[in-house]
Amino acid sequence: MSTYDSRIDFQQELRIMGQAARKAARKLALLQGTSKSRCIEAMAESLFDSSSQVLEANEKDLAAAREKGLSQAMIDRLTLTTERIEEMVKGMRVLCGLPEPVGKVESTWIRPNDLKINKVRVPIGVIGIIYESRPNVTADAAGLCMKAGNAVFLRGGSESINSNIAIASALREGLCCCDMPKDAVQLVPWTEREAVNEMLKMKEYIDLIIPRGGEGLIKAVVENSHIPVIKHYKGVCHIYVDAKADIQMASRIVENAKCQRPGVCNAVETLLIHKDIADEFAPKIAEQLTEKGVELRGDQGFCRLAPSAKPAREDDWGAEFLDLILAVRVVDSIEQAIEHIADYGSGHSEAIITESKTAASLFTESVDSAAVYVNASTRFTDGGQFGMGAEIGISTDRIHARGPMGIDELTTYKYVIKGSGQIRA
Amino acid sequence: MSTYDSRIDFQQELRIMGQAARKAARKLALLQGTSKSRCIEAMAESLFDSSSQVLEANEKDLAAAREKGLSQAMIDRLTLTTERIEEMVKGMRVLCGLPEPVGKVESTWIRPNDLKINKVRVPIGVIGIIYESRPNVTADAAGLCMKAGNAVFLRGGSESINSNIAIASALREGLCCCDMPKDAVQLVPWTEREAVNEMLKMKEYIDLIIPRGGEGLIKAVVENSHIPVIKHYKGVCHIYVDAKADIQMASRIVENAKCQRPGVCNAVETLLIHKDIADEFAPKIAEQLTEKGVELRGDQGFCRLAPSAKPAREDDWGAEFLDLILAVRVVDSIEQAIEHIADYGSGHSEAIITESKTAASLFTESVDSAAVYVNASTRFTDGGQFGMGAEIGISTDRIHARGPMGIDELTTYKYVIKGSGQIRA
Repeated sequence: MSTYDSRIDFQQELRIMGQAARKAARKLALLQGTSKSRCIEAMAESLFDSSSQVLEANEKDLAAAREKGLSQAMIDRLTLTTERIEEMVKGMRVLCGLPEPVGKVESTWIRPNDLKINKVRVPIGVIGIIYESRPNVTADAAGLCMKAGNAVFLRGGSESINSNIAIASALREGLCCCDMPKDAVQLVPWTEREAVNEMLKMKEYIDLIIPRGGEGLIKAVVENSHIPVIKHYKGVCHIYVDAKADIQMASRIVENAKCQRPGVCNAVETLLIHKDIADEFAPKIAEQLTEKGVELRGDQGFCRLAPSAKPAREDDWGAEFLDLILAVRVVDSIEQAIEHIADYGSGHSEAIITESKTAASLFTESVDSAAVYVNASTRFTDGGQFGMGAEIGISTDRIHARGPMGIDELTTYKYVIKGSGQIRA
Repeated sequence: MSTYDSRIDFQQELRIMGQAARKAARKLALLQGTSKSRCIEAMAESLFDSSSQVLEANEKDLAAAREKGLSQAMIDRLTLTTERIEEMVKGMRVLCGLPEPVGKVESTWIRPNDLKINKVRVPIGVIGIIYESRPNVTADAAGLCMKAGNAVFLRGGSESINSNIAIASALREGLCCCDMPKDAVQLVPWTEREAVNEMLKMKEYIDLIIPRGGEGLIKAVVENSHIPVIKHYKGVCHIYVDAKADIQMASRIVENAKCQRPGVCNAVETLLIHKDIADEFAPKIAEQLTEKGVELRGDQGFCRLAPSAKPAREDDWGAEFLDLILAVRVVDSIEQAIEHIADYGSGHSEAIITESKTAASLFTESVDSAAVYVNASTRFTDGGQFGMGAEIGISTDRIHARGPMGIDELTTYKYVIKGSGQIRA
């Protein structure tokens, strides 16, 4: 339950939390990798030991959710079980084995005056995460931020407030056991919007905000934040089947990208088919997808070849269905496909299916998305699939981090310059 | 003169400009290095050819400035001469010879399923620059952004509006001569604050905002922008003279960092002296700096050893004097120096003067600033001095770019992934 009290001065309370997080971050930044792993292990162990308290808190959230009449999908996302807690614990432990991101020397050069410049990876500082219902984000984000040497300032959704408080308490207790300031993990215990807005103004104490959630949440964060934000926004992914595509491969990839897990951001939402291959490919893919329960919304060109398709409306282009629905358009050329993607895409992931090297090059050079694929499913845009070990999300922004945002992207750099008395002339 | 008209719908006008910039950016992103050099050369030539129009426009700004009673320093910054225009032209031409930043493959790896992932440098897109009086920024920023494949959306100060309009017109004309969309360079011709605020909301058309100017400008931009901002804020630089410092070297470096050009952000503002070396060093540096006309504001420890110093007030710590003024404190330990910098520094540039490797390591690891020096002047924090060729400014932010921000920092990356039909299991 929110500890709401109209007499709470959010600004003051949050600033105290922010100061403590900043102080903890300074300490974290100096830790060796082995010490950070010890902290993560201690947090994981403490979370495991607190399973019953966490489940009890989660029960309260679930009761409130049922009372409020939340949808079954929402309740599913909110629900914790012993297995889900064990998954969180396991996820944190995996981090310990990943390479240390801090202290890496990215490049070194010597200037004509003999100054030696090193570009070195360092933590960002304090990272604010604003998220919605899934309580596992509390543990996942705390572990990832800690691995990169950052303190974390968490603000979860109101539906999972009790679960989040219980998880964060367990993590903080774990930190105490290994002599680290528990304030490296801060959780905002108030569910009022006013508290988020105050948090978004604390640029002295929070260095970066990562919002995780729906369009409304992200928009509100972007409009109100005085702190840099990296958006993890929607995925309106496109697959373009070129005139020179291998039709078997195209069918397999489109089905995978649409059906394997339709509710995620890297699932395909619009299929573009070159007119020269449409006669053969369109009816085939229509039959195959219809069989899998996919609703097809086509332009005129496609509907003519696939009678099972409904006519697409203008707002189907660029829509993130997150469901077994696919918009399909027949295009005159690869250029038209590229233009369609520029006009309607969200800059997340797009693929071309082609045997032509020229077409592949044109597509990968011209399409400006975080991930551009040749002959592979868009479903691979994911920190794990990219080999990053873990991710905090998938950035659809262009600044600092693009695409899957792993541990390295939770760091920044500084220049360390060694001289022997150089002065500027 | 501003073309102010109360009937102007800033939102609509700016959005039209934004759309055009976005379209131009898409075209720029596909240009080879040689084509971009041709564009920059054409812009430079056109600017040179328009010298008389630019000087005429500048005359109008100067007349208005005198009428408004602006300070001599302001008028100096505002003034253009044939030489200053030639400098702008030369600056643009230098860019042509610098390495091409776009298309560089930063890293490549192959996943166990044989997907080949390439991380490739690409332009950011459209970059908004909001700046104050110096009209040369108009040409410098346009050239730099073009070199990195970006369109630029400029908004200069009201004092230089006529000069900026004349320079931007020349640059746009140059682009036309080489068959490029002139909208790759946009200049907001309205001086009203309303116009900036509308510009800061155009997240569909502008990808990054770089404010260049005083505290008030930067604060207003950060608070109102819906677009990511990289701040180029103040430099409160510190030099710490360690117990084990070479006193001759320390004197030379401190004098250089304070006196060589006191009005810039990488000049030193606070000197910290270890107590064990203070008896010897403090009187010496006090005499040396006083001779150079520097006003010293010391803590008790320093004032005792340097009678010429005034007592420092609390707000002298962390002040950016930008003048021949230096705050000086005697510290008990290197740890106290590090803490002082963490508490009062602006994260710009700090230096330690020491012969001790242990002290140097502790300092460079613990001090969290964009540039941390051992035995060199803070004055080297500068794109040219770092070997970047040119810079758009010096970032005091932690996200995306830190320290001198050159051409590479005006790019982002995308992942290009090549497969042979891979789907996700």
